[in-house]
Amino acid sequence: MRQDQHKILDCTIRDGGLINNWDFSVEFVQDMYRGLSEAGVEYMEIGYKNSEKLLEGGNSGPWRFLNEDFLKDVITKKTDTKLSALVDIGRVDENDILPREQSLLDLIRVACYIKDLDKGLELVQKFHNMGYETSLNIMALSHVMENELIEGFEEINKSPVDVVYIVDSYGSMDYKDIDYLATKFQRLLPKKELGIHMHNNLQLAYSNTIIGASKGVTFLDSSVYGMGRAAGNCPTELLVSYLKNPRYDVRPVLGIIERHMLEMREKWMWGYLIPYMIVGSLDEHPRVAMAHLNSPEKDKFLGFYDKLTSPEVIPTPE
Amino acid sequence: MRQDQHKILDCTIRDGGLINNWDFSVEFVQDMYRGLSEAGVEYMEIGYKNSEKLLEGGNSGPWRFLNEDFLKDVITKKTDTKLSALVDIGRVDENDILPREQSLLDLIRVACYIKDLDKGLELVQKFHNMGYETSLNIMALSHVMENELIEGFEEINKSPVDVVYIVDSYGSMDYKDIDYLATKFQRLLPKKELGIHMHNNLQLAYSNTIIGASKGVTFLDSSVYGMGRAAGNCPTELLVSYLKNPRYDVRPVLGIIERHMLEMREKWMWGYLIPYMIVGSLDEHPRVAMAHLNSPEKDKFLGFYDKLTSPEVIPTPE
Repeated sequence: MRQDQHKILDCTIRDGGLINNWDFSVEFVQDMYRGLSEAGVEYMEIGYKNSEKLLEGGNSGPWRFLNEDFLKDVITKKTDTKLSALVDIGRVDENDILPREQSLLDLIRVACYIKDLDKGLELVQKFHNMGYETSLNIMALSHVMENELIEGFEEINKSPVDVVYIVDSYGSMDYKDIDYLATKFQRLLPKKELGIHMHNNLQLAYSNTIIGASKGVTFLDSSVYGMGRAAGNCPTELLVSYLKNPRYDVRPVLGIIERHMLEMREKWMWGYLIPYMIVGSLDEHPRVAMAHLNSPEKDKFLGFYDKLTSPEVIPTPE
Repeated sequence: MRQDQHKILDCTIRDGGLINNWDFSVEFVQDMYRGLSEAGVEYMEIGYKNSEKLLEGGNSGPWRFLNEDFLKDVITKKTDTKLSALVDIGRVDENDILPREQSLLDLIRVACYIKDLDKGLELVQKFHNMGYETSLNIMALSHVMENELIEGFEEINKSPVDVVYIVDSYGSMDYKDIDYLATKFQRLLPKKELGIHMHNNLQLAYSNTIIGASKGVTFLDSSVYGMGRAAGNCPTELLVSYLKNPRYDVRPVLGIIERHMLEMREKWMWGYLIPYMIVGSLDEHPRVAMAHLNSPEKDKFLGFYDKLTSPEVIPTPE
């Protein structure tokens, strides 16, 4: 694998926040930024830049609705590690976004389903015009029909978007899927950089990521100790150890885990849990598994499996 | 992948016993055999057939020194799931082994390092003569030099051994290593079936196993919920879900996990723990990580990492 070709994007704060409602202290996020910088990680995704006006926030932590004034208090000195934020279609108020020269953010990533591609590309265009690097993260690719994808690619090619992501929202993909998608994306989007964002339902997030990297995907998403929604993501510590580049050093990532992540893993659940494995193997959204794991029946898998695999939908008696 | 080509060999009792000193109840092993049989798993490794006379047994459970009379009380009715046992060079007393027609075992697997290959093949020949299926499991392949391996293959080709295993003792291999080894083994051992036994230090056990399967490896080792030494093995539930063969059903494996494995995982530690990740990424034997995890410093990774990566060996003061 060529050196300097890959960029690691650590999304612990953003994707991990889906596990703990973004209950991360400022000190933790600062330590994370320091550690990832020392480790040579190129990007840190510091949260969502969605708008509180457009989304019930409840008592979410500040990383869900990033505010630039707040950010300036958190990141007092930028390093070589760039900052990114994710936005969702229909949940971001473009007027909240400052021009890049006034912002601490470098990259804005737009997550969308294929049906919202036009809206996604419209946002990309606006953020691009404001000076940001941009990416388009097409979610739930395993549920997208070929013809729709090919049609979408034509629109993407007309857009200034820098990076297009292969996103395995359901954690159901394996090496053959990654090989197939990376080859297809490269052929049909010859001028775009590619990214990969995997989930670990089947213990394949890291493997899929390094296989994607070997196929020419350059933006590699990961999170420290794999902390992310449901089964979590490709662990940053594995990627930093693996990639052949003298800039990377795993030691600072191990330090983050030692100081914070073991304790967090005691408090919040993510990783290889059987309900996540079940939905991953069935190629289904993890929300049913997350609900099951929040119920008193959480350790009963057979009933859960039977419900999901039964061809009949049996109504619950009133 | 062609149907009926692969055989799953579940080694929970044998390899998992390395975690809990084989402290499995008869009822548990019987439930395991029932569940694996219903799941369509082809082989269950029910323990080691080493000799108590040749190895300090301490208070190990009976699955470490399998006894045929005892086994007959455990497995009162054989199913389509065959039984196997592992032996180690220098630890097995051949006089303990009954001819196959008097035994419940079908397959005897001989584990050896490359330096003991001759001894390993001698045992294979004896067990073969007694009517057993045989395999040779070459451990620590990542530390074997090419010339020694090629020399070894010449001897193996003269032996009646049925299956030759690629064993990733240190959990350090990735898809490129598997691709390389499977191709080499096939070319140099054209008449042997191949097997694969992976460890999960880098979360690659399952991925490496299915990649091996796609390259023509037919014997696939796994354990329920990944229970096995240190970081554990390729999880049986993932393999059973993945392989396209109508004989397989994941539901009985989920049942075993629900009834037993969650509780065991509370009591005994295996899986993706950072000290195992560290030794895996350094391609070292897990014993130092196991010792570290048994020490009061178990959650301190940085000192452990520094010790293993320091070029100097600093003596401990007396």
